[in-house]
Amino acid sequence: MNSALITIGDEILIGQVTDTNVVWIATELNSLGVSVGEMVTVSDDAAQIISTLDRYVGSYDLVIMTGGLGPTKDDLTKQTLAEYFQSPMVTIPEVMEKIKAYFKARGRSLIESNLRQADVPEACEALINNHGTAPGMWFEKEGTIIVSLPGVPYEMKGLMEDVVLPRIRGMVKVPDVVHRTIMTQGVPESYLAELIKDWESNLPECVKLAYLPRPGIVRLRLTLSGKCARDSKQILEVLEAGLLEIIPQHIFGYDDLSLEQALGDVLKEKGLTVATAESCTGGNIARLITSVPGSSGYFVGSVIAYQNRIKTGVLNVEEAVINTLGAVSQPVVEQMAMGVKEHFGTDAAIATSGIAGPDGGTAEKPVGTTWISVAYKDKILSRKFLFWGTRDRIIDQASYTAMQLLRRLILDLV
Amino acid sequence: MNSALITIGDEILIGQVTDTNVVWIATELNSLGVSVGEMVTVSDDAAQIISTLDRYVGSYDLVIMTGGLGPTKDDLTKQTLAEYFQSPMVTIPEVMEKIKAYFKARGRSLIESNLRQADVPEACEALINNHGTAPGMWFEKEGTIIVSLPGVPYEMKGLMEDVVLPRIRGMVKVPDVVHRTIMTQGVPESYLAELIKDWESNLPECVKLAYLPRPGIVRLRLTLSGKCARDSKQILEVLEAGLLEIIPQHIFGYDDLSLEQALGDVLKEKGLTVATAESCTGGNIARLITSVPGSSGYFVGSVIAYQNRIKTGVLNVEEAVINTLGAVSQPVVEQMAMGVKEHFGTDAAIATSGIAGPDGGTAEKPVGTTWISVAYKDKILSRKFLFWGTRDRIIDQASYTAMQLLRRLILDLV
Repeated sequence: MNSALITIGDEILIGQVTDTNVVWIATELNSLGVSVGEMVTVSDDAAQIISTLDRYVGSYDLVIMTGGLGPTKDDLTKQTLAEYFQSPMVTIPEVMEKIKAYFKARGRSLIESNLRQADVPEACEALINNHGTAPGMWFEKEGTIIVSLPGVPYEMKGLMEDVVLPRIRGMVKVPDVVHRTIMTQGVPESYLAELIKDWESNLPECVKLAYLPRPGIVRLRLTLSGKCARDSKQILEVLEAGLLEIIPQHIFGYDDLSLEQALGDVLKEKGLTVATAESCTGGNIARLITSVPGSSGYFVGSVIAYQNRIKTGVLNVEEAVINTLGAVSQPVVEQMAMGVKEHFGTDAAIATSGIAGPDGGTAEKPVGTTWISVAYKDKILSRKFLFWGTRDRIIDQASYTAMQLLRRLILDLV
Repeated sequence: MNSALITIGDEILIGQVTDTNVVWIATELNSLGVSVGEMVTVSDDAAQIISTLDRYVGSYDLVIMTGGLGPTKDDLTKQTLAEYFQSPMVTIPEVMEKIKAYFKARGRSLIESNLRQADVPEACEALINNHGTAPGMWFEKEGTIIVSLPGVPYEMKGLMEDVVLPRIRGMVKVPDVVHRTIMTQGVPESYLAELIKDWESNLPECVKLAYLPRPGIVRLRLTLSGKCARDSKQILEVLEAGLLEIIPQHIFGYDDLSLEQALGDVLKEKGLTVATAESCTGGNIARLITSVPGSSGYFVGSVIAYQNRIKTGVLNVEEAVINTLGAVSQPVVEQMAMGVKEHFGTDAAIATSGIAGPDGGTAEKPVGTTWISVAYKDKILSRKFLFWGTRDRIIDQASYTAMQLLRRLILDLV
């Protein structure tokens, strides 16, 4: 079963909105064995929507459209689909009830534009939206299923999970492609390729490898097809074991596991608590750790010591050391880690101090210079890095590097 | 001048990577008056790349392709372009020198695959990449300019800014469309539409309005075309003044200004300092504030008091109050705000305490319940919210709501 995705919205074409919907939809479809052959973004324009449908209907088994179903005047996907299917609008009583209940539950009064959301073209099956007011629509034409969903991400996801994905799951055969992703931290793409080149050149013909870098992390995606897909379990076991022998300290998980989740898993499993003392990362490590549900079980808290007087006043860093060596130095970052560990009474701690830029760099300590210290029980590990790129990239690289260093210290992978 | 964007990469089609490149490119092209008519994502597959080029070349003035230029074996855009233009590969000495210098500056040794990046099809002009090793390529065919760029975002941006955008700027006429975005916080989309419906229905014919919601923020995009584009300055002055009269407390800026930047601007202008005491937001407010270059001038630091003993031990919240009213309560969040303000010696403070979920909710305090307190000099403002959605959405909504509340308290817009 193959598919194409259509995103409707001027906001995407003028660059105002990042299309995260297609990422999620593509992931879900692929996991069911449905390939995504093309993704296209078109304007909130009836003629362009229709010509795109003309191009896909009959060529793909499934077309999923998102966007243009909101209550405001600029949204016209529903009217355009009515025109495309030459179908009059009808009011769906069940949707009308849902809309009324939705507003009642939130203690809000109904607006006329919300009520109109209960109307859909007669040619479709209305899909009940349990997370918002705009229903989804399911059409079929020339052997192609056309599904139209709201562009609001959690409404789209709700409709996909409640209705669309279960139906598609019932339609597809056994997938003929298996994907496996190995998550690594600590080596840039081209160096990783050099480290694992023998392993890579020994891959079977029916296994493809792709390198997917992002700040601080490189994902290795293996794609198994043909006979490798059929025997994927055994083949992956051998390949993963081989890679673990070469770079055990850099692999932190599989299949898009986040590093914050991987670190959390280690802490939870060993019954440990952690705190952070952050300067250049400005709370980003705390945010990542606490983005994991259940993190309150092991994350105690943080001191974001952005100005030096917080480093000395709250974390007990010696003022004389800051004055002589500067805040971006090994003794300062180690005192920060020890300070927060002691003050917050945790088993482990992470500390960062660096120059995220764009200003503040010197010849001796250019932008990107970052000291990271991780402490675990009576052990402490400190390293200096020179990260490259923009302020955001430097903060991200420092955050992921710090989390992986703590993970390695705890797991004795240093 | 019109354009189409091609993204090449299986990682996008299987949903593993979010395509942020097209967002940035579309924004830049639109700001030059170049419309983006379509965006498409295709596979790392020579046949599909060529058929997509066939479809666009001759139809658009400009085609920008990203991706597939890396040093590893899965990247094949360059070979495919050589085939499409029936052009042999040549080595570009200047690029070779750049690659050698790039590696020397970083103290890394050169790998064979990096050296091959100095080869490009003879039919193109190689575009020097000052931020990485893969050069860009500039082709022309049947009146269409075809530009191929690396998919790594900062390399793509570097090449666009250094070479591509300046050239295109010289080619385009006066733009015939003007965009203006008004940034709002604190009212959901449909309520905002109700609040401003008279203003909206009085918009001139040649002004289009679009609502662009995201967690905690709704952007209002005005698109002026025709005669409205010619007189955009005067028309926008009147429209913006009209909107400011209706919702002064909700507008925090224009043209995708971030709320963290808007808050930073107010603090900087008034010479104020700020600290945060975060529970449910887990450092996200600190991270947002410190994502702004120069924030070290006004941001002093934070206490992330995730566990209650940090609220009492570090922020001096009374234990008896937590025991009787719970951590998610007005007195606790007010004591957190006052505690960090006093402890860190700042002019202003933000505190949050809530239930981000997915677990931890009760009938009385369901997931999403959040107390926010902002303090400024001797004033304190506290409000209770019930945010909807996933853990990430709740944290985002709480973070933006809190920053805007402090901004309003300082600017007397409460």
